[in-house]
Amino acid sequence: MNIVLLDPRQTESELWNISAKRQVEHLKTHVDVQVGDTLKVGIREGKRYLTQIVSITDNGIQLKPLQEEEVPAKHPVTLIVAMPRPKVLRRLIMDAVTLGVEKIILLHSYRVDKSYWQTPFLQQLDHYVTLGLEQAGDTIAPKIELYKRFKPFVEDVLPSMISSDYPAYVAHPYVEDVMPTGIQHGCTIIIGPEGGFIPYEVDLLIKNGCQAVSLGNRIIRTETVIPYVLGRLFSC
Amino acid sequence: MNIVLLDPRQTESELWNISAKRQVEHLKTHVDVQVGDTLKVGIREGKRYLTQIVSITDNGIQLKPLQEEEVPAKHPVTLIVAMPRPKVLRRLIMDAVTLGVEKIILLHSYRVDKSYWQTPFLQQLDHYVTLGLEQAGDTIAPKIELYKRFKPFVEDVLPSMISSDYPAYVAHPYVEDVMPTGIQHGCTIIIGPEGGFIPYEVDLLIKNGCQAVSLGNRIIRTETVIPYVLGRLFSC
Repeated sequence: MNIVLLDPRQTESELWNISAKRQVEHLKTHVDVQVGDTLKVGIREGKRYLTQIVSITDNGIQLKPLQEEEVPAKHPVTLIVAMPRPKVLRRLIMDAVTLGVEKIILLHSYRVDKSYWQTPFLQQLDHYVTLGLEQAGDTIAPKIELYKRFKPFVEDVLPSMISSDYPAYVAHPYVEDVMPTGIQHGCTIIIGPEGGFIPYEVDLLIKNGCQAVSLGNRIIRTETVIPYVLGRLFSC
Repeated sequence: MNIVLLDPRQTESELWNISAKRQVEHLKTHVDVQVGDTLKVGIREGKRYLTQIVSITDNGIQLKPLQEEEVPAKHPVTLIVAMPRPKVLRRLIMDAVTLGVEKIILLHSYRVDKSYWQTPFLQQLDHYVTLGLEQAGDTIAPKIELYKRFKPFVEDVLPSMISSDYPAYVAHPYVEDVMPTGIQHGCTIIIGPEGGFIPYEVDLLIKNGCQAVSLGNRIIRTETVIPYVLGRLFSC
């Protein structure tokens, strides 16, 4: 937790109040906050501030804002991922948020186990988004969309997201083109499931405007490939 | 598991034998292997082969090699990481191995909890190295070294690892220089603990030849920053 994220309603009075049990306990136990300490605070979907702790009571931790701070910019990137195992999903959401992805799409695919769509984590995505934002020092949640049918998404939704200055790259082994580096424009990145997209899916993606690109001859897990690709694409 | 890693002793006779319970169970349960299937196999510290399954018995799975395959090249990089929490350590080792890091050094630092050095995971590093190699399709384990004292390592060991074509970069927020991109030479990457190196440690690293470089204004977790930095550095 590198900032404390507050709901706008918690910052309406002159003194702001941190009341969420998770945040209060973390600040008391791990950070050992004291009256007079400064604390970085973000307002959800809003600005970021350096604040000072005015009092610590049974109702929470009371703050006054000192000065505005910069909210880190996002990468102009849409991440489309074949729905991963629940444990991986949690990390993937947190990491994608921390790294500044603008939009996340979870997509069904042939090799995705249908049970993955039943995970209770899907009801808790907002919690993992919050953790990712608090890690990064960001305040703006990415958009998250779910598409449980591959073909209608790829044929009817995806093409309208692709343009010459916002291409879509499918990570795919065994192709000659390589994933670009240090790009100066936005893009969509498409990551398959464990075991990869099936040939029919790759063909349909390419037919609908995507470029299949390789990341070299190492096979990298979904949750690892996302920071690896983002570091590579936005390295300028 | 994208290849099955065998000990050289398992490949001495004409037919090779997969006997490790973990590997046999994975291949039977998840891959549902059958006699006649081809299987990618690596010999630890050796070559990689496409093989064919000749028989499946109570003793394991018997193979014959068909043809040699390419072992993926490593990145010329040494990763020095402040000893992380045990759970993070496990992932970090697997990811660093999967991504092709040549050498990993685990280092003590002021903000590292001393108890981390007692974790049983340290006795199982070789297992996580194996999992990382099997994920990547690699056969060569990176060197792993442990240094439980920060100052003697930084003053007596680190300087001899640094040269003009093998610089050392400390990831550090709030500095003006940024982490380079698309480098064509080897390097050492130094990643601090949760909460970062203390100023004394950063100063000592710089005094002994390291360059402090920033990764931007998002604060990224240790296990996420490693693939992010590797993607960025070796993006050419």
